[in-house]
Amino acid sequence: MEDSRPLDALNKARNKRVIVELKNGKQYIGKLNAFDIHINIVLEEAEEKVNGELTRKLGVIFLRGDTIIMVSPA
Amino acid sequence: MEDSRPLDALNKARNKRVIVELKNGKQYIGKLNAFDIHINIVLEEAEEKVNGELTRKLGVIFLRGDTIIMVSPA
Amino acid sequence: MEDSRPLDALNKARNKRVIVELKNGKQYIGKLNAFDIHINIVLEEAEEKVNGELTRKLGVIFLRGDTIIMVSPA
Amino acid sequence: MEDSRPLDALNKARNKRVIVELKNGKQYIGKLNAFDIHINIVLEEAEEKVNGELTRKLGVIFLRGDTIIMVSPA
Amino acid sequence: MEDSRPLDALNKARNKRVIVELKNGKQYIGKLNAFDIHINIVLEEAEEKVNGELTRKLGVIFLRGDTIIMVSPA
Amino acid sequence: MEDSRPLDALNKARNKRVIVELKNGKQYIGKLNAFDIHINIVLEEAEEKVNGELTRKLGVIFLRGDTIIMVSPA
Amino acid sequence: MEDSRPLDALNKARNKRVIVELKNGKQYIGKLNAFDIHINIVLEEAEEKVNGELTRKLGVIFLRGDTIIMVSPA
Repeated sequence: MEDSRPLDALNKARNKRVIVELKNGKQYIGKLNAFDIHINIVLEEAEEKVNGELTRKLGVIFLRGDTIIMVSPA
Repeated sequence: MEDSRPLDALNKARNKRVIVELKNGKQYIGKLNAFDIHINIVLEEAEEKVNGELTRKLGVIFLRGDTIIMVSPA
Repeated sequence: MEDSRPLDALNKARNKRVIVELKNGKQYIGKLNAFDIHINIVLEEAEEKVNGELTRKLGVIFLRGDTIIMVSPA
Repeated sequence: MEDSRPLDALNKARNKRVIVELKNGKQYIGKLNAFDIHINIVLEEAEEKVNGELTRKLGVIFLRGDTIIMVSPA
Repeated sequence: MEDSRPLDALNKARNKRVIVELKNGKQYIGKLNAFDIHINIVLEEAEEKVNGELTRKLGVIFLRGDTIIMVSPA
Repeated sequence: MEDSRPLDALNKARNKRVIVELKNGKQYIGKLNAFDIHINIVLEEAEEKVNGELTRKLGVIFLRGDTIIMVSPA
Repeated sequence: MEDSRPLDALNKARNKRVIVELKNGKQYIGKLNAFDIHINIVLEEAEEKVNGELTRKLGVIFLRGDTIIMVSPA
């Protein structure tokens, strides 16, 4: 069995709801539509949370990879 | 069906109004004229907002990719 | 005998519990599922700790390499 | 019609007055003499502004690309 | 005689005790097991010191190169 | 006539006195002896200024490019 | 006569005493033993100074290039 790679985990999460945490402390929750090797990420039906509070409903968002700390299934 | 890539989302937003959020907390709203793989972005009819308040009307602006956190349709 | 390389140490830790410490001071403890040359890391059954206190149970998490300071067997 | 690229916008601004905003909050206004793919920029007849106040007249200046947030026609 | 290169100094320290100082001010002291061109480093029998005080005994640790300021024989 | 490039401006300043401003707010004034594509710079007869005050006379200095914000003829 | 390059200045300083200043404000003074294109540097008989005060005698030290601001003959 071949060793798994980090992007495999993102691939499994495609079209599912994920939490993305940024270096500025904000969280974005939405359906993982796309990602690339830079970890640029596109979410659909995205919501922004700051300190656990819903702050904005955003629809489609493009997040630049270098601002991302963590991605996890929601 | 092929998996979509993050830049596809930016391509769909071309010539439409988008919000661009920067690492310094400022927002720029304008028509997405151009972008590249570094996420350098050109907006037309751009307006700057700080804490939700309109602070400047700027016309055409070039934003360097490494300062950008998020791009979303306005 | 050939000199060992840093990624060998991560390879030995595969499928074992590790602590990952991030630049923002948070710790993630979980089973090391995957890593790559950028030190992007996937943990399973992950828990978040802040100042030694368990703050969240997270399941699978993807951590972007450039936010990581240290990885150590738990 | 081909999609425009971000550097096209800088090319159109060549030899015209532009505002360059840096990560340290300073603005430089001058004639755009040269730029490259790193967004290194040379301005002529440059003036420095801090908080909207003219602080220095500088003549020719070379600005390193990675310190630049925004470029816009003045 | 050929000029020496920086990694030669790390190579000489292999399997010896070194101090590694990080950008966050912490020190790790341990036996230098492995390093690479990114200055990713693996220490064995590692101890963490903060402000000169022993704070943790850690065993094997992987330190990501871009967090490292200095490496010196202990 | 060919478009000028940013390094042309540095080339014209070779062997002339320039001001180099760093991200840490310090200024170095000296004769521009050498530069490269990373904007690593060597000054001769260099002086350091902090807040406009002369703080040190340094002779030859090598400045690492990624710490530089601006270069301008003195 | 060919234009000089920044690394020529470091090459001339080889085996001579230099001051290396880091982004964290610390200075290291020692004999320049080795450097590379990343400006990774090895000093011998190195001393650390903070605010001009000698704080440590260190022997051989490896300094990672991206933490360095300036190198100058001591």
